[in-house]
Amino acid sequence: MEDTTGAEQDADNVIRILVATDNHLGYGEKDAVRGEDSFTAFEEILELAVSEDVDMILLGGDLFHDAVPSQNSMHKCIELLRRYTFGDRPVSLEILSDQAQCFHNAVNQSVNYEDPNLNIAIPVFSIHGNHDDPSGFGRLSSLDLLSTSGLVNYFGRWTDLSQVEISPVLIRKGESQLALYGLSHIHDGRLARLIKDFKVKFNCPGTVAIGEAGDESKEEEDWFHLLVVHQNRAERGPKNYLPEDLLPPFLDLVIWGHEHDCRIEPEENAKQRFYVSQPGSSVPTSLSEGEAKKKHVGLLEIYKGKFKLKALPLQTVRPFVYESVVLPDRAEELGLDEGDASNKVFKFAKERVEAMLEMAATQHTGHPRQPTLPLIRLRLLYTDESCMFNAIRFGQMFSTRVANVQDVVQFSKLIKRTKTE
Amino acid sequence: MEDTTGAEQDADNVIRILVATDNHLGYGEKDAVRGEDSFTAFEEILELAVSEDVDMILLGGDLFHDAVPSQNSMHKCIELLRRYTFGDRPVSLEILSDQAQCFHNAVNQSVNYEDPNLNIAIPVFSIHGNHDDPSGFGRLSSLDLLSTSGLVNYFGRWTDLSQVEISPVLIRKGESQLALYGLSHIHDGRLARLIKDFKVKFNCPGTVAIGEAGDESKEEEDWFHLLVVHQNRAERGPKNYLPEDLLPPFLDLVIWGHEHDCRIEPEENAKQRFYVSQPGSSVPTSLSEGEAKKKHVGLLEIYKGKFKLKALPLQTVRPFVYESVVLPDRAEELGLDEGDASNKVFKFAKERVEAMLEMAATQHTGHPRQPTLPLIRLRLLYTDESCMFNAIRFGQMFSTRVANVQDVVQFSKLIKRTKTE
Ligand SMILES: [Mn+2]
Ligand SMILES: [Mn+2]
Ligand SMILES: [Mn+2]
Ligand SMILES: [Mn+2]
Repeated sequence: MEDTTGAEQDADNVIRILVATDNHLGYGEKDAVRGEDSFTAFEEILELAVSEDVDMILLGGDLFHDAVPSQNSMHKCIELLRRYTFGDRPVSLEILSDQAQCFHNAVNQSVNYEDPNLNIAIPVFSIHGNHDDPSGFGRLSSLDLLSTSGLVNYFGRWTDLSQVEISPVLIRKGESQLALYGLSHIHDGRLARLIKDFKVKFNCPGTVAIGEAGDESKEEEDWFHLLVVHQNRAERGPKNYLPEDLLPPFLDLVIWGHEHDCRIEPEENAKQRFYVSQPGSSVPTSLSEGEAKKKHVGLLEIYKGKFKLKALPLQTVRPFVYESVVLPDRAEELGLDEGDASNKVFKFAKERVEAMLEMAATQHTGHPRQPTLPLIRLRLLYTDESCMFNAIRFGQMFSTRVANVQDVVQFSKLIKRTKTE
Repeated sequence: MEDTTGAEQDADNVIRILVATDNHLGYGEKDAVRGEDSFTAFEEILELAVSEDVDMILLGGDLFHDAVPSQNSMHKCIELLRRYTFGDRPVSLEILSDQAQCFHNAVNQSVNYEDPNLNIAIPVFSIHGNHDDPSGFGRLSSLDLLSTSGLVNYFGRWTDLSQVEISPVLIRKGESQLALYGLSHIHDGRLARLIKDFKVKFNCPGTVAIGEAGDESKEEEDWFHLLVVHQNRAERGPKNYLPEDLLPPFLDLVIWGHEHDCRIEPEENAKQRFYVSQPGSSVPTSLSEGEAKKKHVGLLEIYKGKFKLKALPLQTVRPFVYESVVLPDRAEELGLDEGDASNKVFKFAKERVEAMLEMAATQHTGHPRQPTLPLIRLRLLYTDESCMFNAIRFGQMFSTRVANVQDVVQFSKLIKRTKTE
């Protein structure tokens, strides 16, 4: 059970963390309708951190959508971080590990709130994702800029791709001790090879190589072991994901970035007996089923070896309704075999979109900054091209009612898989 | 006379400013030999600001070479500014003008050292040049990023190109009062039109439109009027520069950016009776005669209506020797009309470069961070192509002795101008 905090806890001993990931700042920034969405959601997350009075914010990568963010995106990000994370609130987290080692490209080689020249109220800790990984001349990440600026504590950055050693940031607040492990994004295939070759190492009391026999019994420990990763979680080909089971069993909780659908409710890994929480993105970067799920961030509370994760629904995310229809399954109902299939599907699609618009309206939260013009995506799976119509012209009918006029309907050819393969 | 400070001045009443311009951070950053030069010089400038214990640093534009600096350049700039301009030293400059108006894109709409969350020791003030002017999506300048980060006070940014109103930053220290006017770069042709149409306005006690009759007598004033511009100063076509005489006579001193040759010693404008100081760039961005001049920054001291400007020679600038030879003038001496001209010029050039290398050695300052491999540029002006040789192969002879192997010699065709034109 993830809710394992006891009544004995009190504010001085509980580490409170706002957990979010995949904010993709700058996604679609030039879109006249959706351009602000990524920033709006990120601002709400920062506001939640302030109102929940957390000790820190933990980000799981892909803070920016582009490896080299536009000056507009960087500017807005800096402005928001300065506005919400700076201030007089004292930070009560003590860093016990070597700060010069933990934080990449930090001026003064320290966590930002210990820099005597900065007044930090809520420190932000982040790994990098595949969208903000080091690139270009100097192999710098946008997170390096934020680190050097003192805005973000950039951790979990590997420096040697022939072997990865993960040393945790050791954090103490009162009676609770957190070992925070970060594994910034590595190409999944490469990571799979490294794991296979026992070249991923976790430096914790009693070092454990990932992939080694995982039958150590989980002892009562002094540390709460929290890992943040940014990899494929779902199997996308044999070496194209990080299998949960390969992560070491001494972990208590894994925050999984990169996957955009919200599965924030911690799920227990039966074999390794840790929990995995996948917050999901704060802005949809594709009009897919997963991105249409209600978006959340997490309020993680750690007391000694126990944790509680409360899902906080985001109120400023643009309504988004997704529906997928297999047209052959509806052939009879719609009379598609009786001719004029294109018109019949057109009419059906129009009805569906009207219904979806009604569903979208139920996603209005009343938050003053929520954009209400919805994203609507109706996916039509077809086998026979006679079902198709002009999707662009279709979208134009809803030009004042949806945020994505150009791609309301998407036709996808249904590939029949033969059973023998 | 520019040195007009009296004996009555004392530290509490003198405004001390480190003046520099055209640092072109990131110039040639991918060049294996010269890549660090721009950063090295900028670091020396910041060190000078610290050792001279100035009240502020004033930059005249082109802080960056590229409108969108690489992450490497931005990272290094931020790192240097944080290292040298942050700290506990109290800033004794009082801003009297409306800070929300003065500083572009400042979080909290204030000068950085009044931001309670930042500990600034030496504030940096900058206009933008043509290399770091607002561009791209959002029309942001790299200076906007530095402003939002709290690293630079970005002033003199016009927002309306149909008319330019220049409101000074009003600064007081003890008995001295400085009105600091900034005119960030505007295309010279456009600026010429605006001036011609009386659409450039200086907001000072007794507003004066630039270009209006300039015969006001210079009264004893409460304010020292300092303008920073970033325009062509030399005439490059009729509307392709800003004529000094068009600047209003109430000014006391103009700091002129954009021109890269150092003419830092203040020159009096006879008509308007202000002084002009042109610090020049801190890194050569072209191998021209002007860039080969010894490079300086200025230590400007203002006491009431008087100023003193001390030129501080930069010690970390790479040695650079430039020479231009008109070959026809040497035809007889070299025997160029007696055949084998190419070989004769080759031999001559080789001797010249050897002599230039000796001159370059005299530019060694002993500063531990000065790169000593010199820049050498021999320009050969020719009329007859028989004088030419393979300049690339020529440079290879000096491959271990010069920083610019690929272009030591440059041939330029001498255009004969007929007198009747
Ligand atoms: Mn992502
Ligand atoms: Mn990702
Ligand atoms: Mn310049
Ligand atoms: Mn310029």
